Amino acid sequence: MDEIKIKSDSRDYPIYIGFNVGKSLDKLIKSKYSSVLIITDENVAKFYLEEIKSNLKGQRTFTKIIPPGEGSKNIGVYYEMQSYLIQSGLDRKSLIIALGGGVVGDLAGFVAATYMRGIDYIQIPTTVLAHDSSVGGKVAINHEHGKNMIGSFYPPRMVIFDTRYISTLPLREIRSGYAELLKEALIADKLFFEDLLKSSITSLMDEQIHEHIKKGILIKAAIVEKDEKENGLRKHLNLGHTLGHALEASIGYGKITHGEAVAIGLLFSLYVSERVFPVKLPFDSLLQWLIRNNYPLISQKTDINHLISLMKTDKKTINNSIQMVLLKKIGFPVVQSIRDEELVNYLKDFFDKIGNDIY
Amino acid sequence: MDEIKIKSDSRDYPIYIGFNVGKSLDKLIKSKYSSVLIITDENVAKFYLEEIKSNLKGQRTFTKIIPPGEGSKNIGVYYEMQSYLIQSGLDRKSLIIALGGGVVGDLAGFVAATYMRGIDYIQIPTTVLAHDSSVGGKVAINHEHGKNMIGSFYPPRMVIFDTRYISTLPLREIRSGYAELLKEALIADKLFFEDLLKSSITSLMDEQIHEHIKKGILIKAAIVEKDEKENGLRKHLNLGHTLGHALEASIGYGKITHGEAVAIGLLFSLYVSERVFPVKLPFDSLLQWLIRNNYPLISQKTDINHLISLMKTDKKTINNSIQMVLLKKIGFPVVQSIRDEELVNYLKDFFDKIGNDIY
Repeated sequence: MDEIKIKSDSRDYPIYIGFNVGKSLDKLIKSKYSSVLIITDENVAKFYLEEIKSNLKGQRTFTKIIPPGEGSKNIGVYYEMQSYLIQSGLDRKSLIIALGGGVVGDLAGFVAATYMRGIDYIQIPTTVLAHDSSVGGKVAINHEHGKNMIGSFYPPRMVIFDTRYISTLPLREIRSGYAELLKEALIADKLFFEDLLKSSITSLMDEQIHEHIKKGILIKAAIVEKDEKENGLRKHLNLGHTLGHALEASIGYGKITHGEAVAIGLLFSLYVSERVFPVKLPFDSLLQWLIRNNYPLISQKTDINHLISLMKTDKKTINNSIQMVLLKKIGFPVVQSIRDEELVNYLKDFFDKIGNDIY
Repeated sequence: MDEIKIKSDSRDYPIYIGFNVGKSLDKLIKSKYSSVLIITDENVAKFYLEEIKSNLKGQRTFTKIIPPGEGSKNIGVYYEMQSYLIQSGLDRKSLIIALGGGVVGDLAGFVAATYMRGIDYIQIPTTVLAHDSSVGGKVAINHEHGKNMIGSFYPPRMVIFDTRYISTLPLREIRSGYAELLKEALIADKLFFEDLLKSSITSLMDEQIHEHIKKGILIKAAIVEKDEKENGLRKHLNLGHTLGHALEASIGYGKITHGEAVAIGLLFSLYVSERVFPVKLPFDSLLQWLIRNNYPLISQKTDINHLISLMKTDKKTINNSIQMVLLKKIGFPVVQSIRDEELVNYLKDFFDKIGNDIY
């Protein structure tokens, strides 16, 4: 088991990573809570809910199971959760456990952040992708007009990453998660990036997954420690996300995974970086790796103007001008304001280059 | 103009108190925001909205007016606000101004706390009561099963208390606000309490109001500085509120004001304190003052068991046991766990004593 300590403005907390670390849940939690509510989704519940409950001996435990997928991260489900907490008599000394991927973590975390002005919660991510979202204390739900528009900065008490859970993931989920690992590598660690490009999604070993996730978390942790509230550095974690979020919204949540959309966004950020700065980036090797690992690059006809209006709903937008994270080289990200006219051209050329239809 | 500095865990901020201090708004704000949204209610808008807008020269200003009253502090209005912010293109460098009483402050503050994970906001309280709620960073909306159940600790950038606004308040609002002043006096300052008992709600001078509010804020500020997140000391501010909140819920928000309910709660806390501790408290002089100043003590038939179940939804409840703030003497509050059986008897005797019907 590896332990990484995160220092945040409001609270320090540990991240435990290891095969079977979930089985030590009660030893890791230590405190006695007046109630424990496990929030999870239908898919995860099938595999791990009973196991987690059996590792919570002596706690008064409740369970709330939500439908899987981004659709659950809305105000209706959020309010239903709040009602459930009140009706179950959860008080300020209660704990929420978020058992699942990013959707469960974001939703359960935001419920914890705002129930009675904040109660404790623990993240138990069950996807590769959630190594990223579970660290750093960003929690949120979606608004119909934008992703993660309603939320807080509210760090968990701890994060428990059991790499055994990865074994039951569909390939597509692993693919999605590896896009965030690629992002972390691109903003901070050239060797890690090259190492990832040597891996194949279909033949990952347990130790490899452990190492990749640990490296990803260490990169993320170093950034959020320096800038928890996203005033500066933390924006770099948005690499690939301005276009990524817009693609998710335009194609439809569920039709493309977050990571698949981010992968295209990463490629685009390399593409734009090479045009804005005098730098040669591994655009082609990343493109080839994505193709080899079956990332869906050509999805459907893309309406550039609609995409740009979606990109502007990004929370990083300032004075109506899109802020993109670009690379001066691998490991040297910067935030750059991009004018709409430039963006239209970049998008057209980029989609043309990767073989997508535009109109 | 008086200036009080508040130190909080997350942020330091000033409170400005004075007659006409609202007219210096643009000088006090200093920063240039990408947009400013004023949230206010219909009553306040009539008197002060245009004035506030004219004191925001050079800022891109929006206004959102909500219906007055506790009914607006719900999830529907909250979400409507979020939609309005998105549609108006407010970004992370925007400011919300909460212009109004506690309802506007709590709602607008919670919108600010959670829009894009938190943007700046300023409290401009327009009631006596809001001297209390605008300081300390507690923001929230109500759940149908409990008051302020959904919220955050999220301090404002500043609080601007223009005592001129008090002049347009209905008497009932002033009465409501003075209950919180009595509470602050009871938990911290015997002389202030005696001073308040000498005042009459119908004949307050401007300087008196200024001094009372300033004293109230200083007491509140000293407590929230020591315990922003309500782990200990801050609970004392709940004096009179366990019963107060339950009365509001059972009688119906709007039918009794918050302060009127708290006034009864304060009396009750004196009553219980005298039974739990060997202390003689000014129960009778407070009762006489409340009667003299037309506080409604006899409201309607009271269902004791319903009241107790409502008291248990209080956020301070731990392990289903009601936590009441009591006084060992004036200025020495303590939190005491009260058993249900005792509470039934206390409530029966108390309501009997103040001449209320129970069943």
